[in-house]
Amino acid sequence: MSVNRLSILGVGLLGGSIGLAVRSVGMSCEITGYGHRQGTLDRALNMGAIDRATADAGESVADSDLIILCTPVGSFRKILREIGPKLKLSAIVTDVGSTKRSVVHAAEQALPRGARFVGSHPMAGSEKRGVEYARADLFRGARCIVTPTPKTDTGALAEVENFWRAIGMSVVRLSPEEHDRLICDISHLPHAVAAALVDMQDDEALALAGMGFLDSTRVAGGDGGLWRDIFLDNADNVTAAIDRLRSKLEMLSSRLKAGQGEELKAWLDVVAARRAKLLTEKLKELEG
Amino acid sequence: MSVNRLSILGVGLLGGSIGLAVRSVGMSCEITGYGHRQGTLDRALNMGAIDRATADAGESVADSDLIILCTPVGSFRKILREIGPKLKLSAIVTDVGSTKRSVVHAAEQALPRGARFVGSHPMAGSEKRGVEYARADLFRGARCIVTPTPKTDTGALAEVENFWRAIGMSVVRLSPEEHDRLICDISHLPHAVAAALVDMQDDEALALAGMGFLDSTRVAGGDGGLWRDIFLDNADNVTAAIDRLRSKLEMLSSRLKAGQGEELKAWLDVVAARRAKLLTEKLKELEG
Repeated sequence: MSVNRLSILGVGLLGGSIGLAVRSVGMSCEITGYGHRQGTLDRALNMGAIDRATADAGESVADSDLIILCTPVGSFRKILREIGPKLKLSAIVTDVGSTKRSVVHAAEQALPRGARFVGSHPMAGSEKRGVEYARADLFRGARCIVTPTPKTDTGALAEVENFWRAIGMSVVRLSPEEHDRLICDISHLPHAVAAALVDMQDDEALALAGMGFLDSTRVAGGDGGLWRDIFLDNADNVTAAIDRLRSKLEMLSSRLKAGQGEELKAWLDVVAARRAKLLTEKLKELEG
Repeated sequence: MSVNRLSILGVGLLGGSIGLAVRSVGMSCEITGYGHRQGTLDRALNMGAIDRATADAGESVADSDLIILCTPVGSFRKILREIGPKLKLSAIVTDVGSTKRSVVHAAEQALPRGARFVGSHPMAGSEKRGVEYARADLFRGARCIVTPTPKTDTGALAEVENFWRAIGMSVVRLSPEEHDRLICDISHLPHAVAAALVDMQDDEALALAGMGFLDSTRVAGGDGGLWRDIFLDNADNVTAAIDRLRSKLEMLSSRLKAGQGEELKAWLDVVAARRAKLLTEKLKELEG
């Protein structure tokens, strides 16, 4: 892949880390960063995450080979409309958004005919925000989901997959619909539950909380605005997943009320073994 | 406090760590360990967690000043009956059980009149089990809840509190009822939820899980038998807490269905700030 010019729109934790990662693997391209806060752009420049900075989205993509949207998902539609007319013919646009149906739909609607968009969700990050937490190795060993549709240009898909692999990620293809359903289950629902677990506590109980509780609720430390967008965007999946979790908890309640100790132990053992297997696989992946 | 002889009944992670902690702070007492598996007793002896080992619970407490029950809560009643007649008059009995109403009740019923029992819950541990994971510093900086009742001997209460402080813990007094309600909210319910979150996943979704999901579900890695006992013992609180969590999740579902973005963001921000405050306090405590 020959990316001579890369544009990163939104230079926060993810955008900044992409810039640093590109540098650290020795890709020689010029990186333009777009943002609306001068302080953030200056910090990204100083860290070496970008080479040039601009507060004009259209200008930021002119002559660019690869454009990556790293702003909050809620801003994509507006930005896609701004950059559409400025894209060069061979340009490829992708993103790092945590939901994919609405993003892919917005891109297909907002970009001009012939523009090449591929939805991406690099599964790396942190509950921290801001370019000051950006790291060259944020993506290394992690997974990136790409979400082609029948309209996706296969050449562009290959190029985007190669880009994520170049900065150390393994790539998985899912449809936007599959992505939103599965990621809801393993990420959006756990976030909702963590928030509810914090919210339901008395101060008296919280005073007794230990590291177990803090681990269980770590994801609830994320940014409210970002997560509002994710929840609203994936509301149908999240509400369905809440219903499924509720059934599991109701099953547990019934067993407790009936004093079904053996069934309870068997359930807990199966769950613990399933998680242990997952942990082993995940650690192997991170090492490999 | 003059503990010349300490008995640890059950030398697993907690019992073994108590022995190592007592040694590491330089208390000079003889430590007798009770257990029914010779391999575990041998390992505890080799690690220096205990000085003598026996498979006879009655024998293990003879002439002992302080007896700490560290076997699973489900075994307490039987053990209390065995050791009751062998206790010397000044002996004090305590425990490390994760539930307190049933334990205190069992002790008041099973021990002979005049025996001095104080319920304790040192809030330290891990999802790992076994003396091989025992550590001298397991309790350092952590909290121990003691649960006196109107029947508790105040001298014994003070001695037990001093013991936990001597191995580095800070002590909180709660009634057995308060303990079981509050610990349900910050420990038993999060465990139930973590188990349900693992159980509800498709293999396809689990394959995409990252560190966020593993953190959210870490507590579900605990031992099934141990947690069955805890859940059954605290069933009334756990089922009530499940209902309260369910209401929070239903509130979230309604907001999602109604598209109430501002309310959602405000809720998520309050929750994130509350958890951030808790984390800061907890880190300060661990340092201090």
